[in-house]
Amino acid sequence: MKFSKIVETSIYSSNLEKMKEFYVGKLGLDFVSEQKGRHVFLKTDKNMLLIFNHETTITEKETNHGAPTPPSMVHIAFEIGSGEYEKAKKLLVDSNIQVEKEIEWENSIKSRSVYFRDPAGNLVEFITKNYWGVKD
Amino acid sequence: MKFSKIVETSIYSSNLEKMKEFYVGKLGLDFVSEQKGRHVFLKTDKNMLLIFNHETTITEKETNHGAPTPPSMVHIAFEIGSGEYEKAKKLLVDSNIQVEKEIEWENSIKSRSVYFRDPAGNLVEFITKNYWGVKD
Repeated sequence: MKFSKIVETSIYSSNLEKMKEFYVGKLGLDFVSEQKGRHVFLKTDKNMLLIFNHETTITEKETNHGAPTPPSMVHIAFEIGSGEYEKAKKLLVDSNIQVEKEIEWENSIKSRSVYFRDPAGNLVEFITKNYWGVKD
Repeated sequence: MKFSKIVETSIYSSNLEKMKEFYVGKLGLDFVSEQKGRHVFLKTDKNMLLIFNHETTITEKETNHGAPTPPSMVHIAFEIGSGEYEKAKKLLVDSNIQVEKEIEWENSIKSRSVYFRDPAGNLVEFITKNYWGVKD
């Protein structure tokens, strides 16, 4: 399989307002959405910068990807082709990589994500393209 | 300024061999280079996945970006246009963001990087395009 890009990179802070002011107000990244106290989602032309507050997400019983991610771990997502979801999942199964969760997003293009862990415990995702509306 | 993409995303592990086997051997990312025990650099079509061993880098007196990065912090790099280095640096200065280090890389296209910190302490970089030879 070819991965065109890392489409999501996550970083973490307990002060999201300060991070938003820095990345949007100073550096000039585009604001996409936020949930106060939990996350701020920003973008460049071609990929997303997701900023999460570990202090909030660690207390969540159920997150998108299943169990909360320990604060020391990070999250990245690789973009896959729209028709490559089953192939990508097969790659995981064939490699004995445990699937943590699958999601069918409620959008018009029926985006799909599958989550798993790397050996360091980082949360890795394959997500079908065009979910975020960033450029190719 | 417009940032076309996050061109470097770093993750961390004390077992680089295992990470390489996972990301290259299983998922199929392209191997770029490595320094045994210190780092493994991989790529997708359009950006880089850098895997560092914090146990090694934390002991380094001088790294590319100046002081070693604490293990809890991550590193990301935004790609900027080849002729936008001075503009990007001015953005930092005008925003009262302290420059941690500047580098002129020893390559034929005279790539340049400037490093600074975000409010959470993460190491952020602006790097002129084409350094890694990934697609636009």
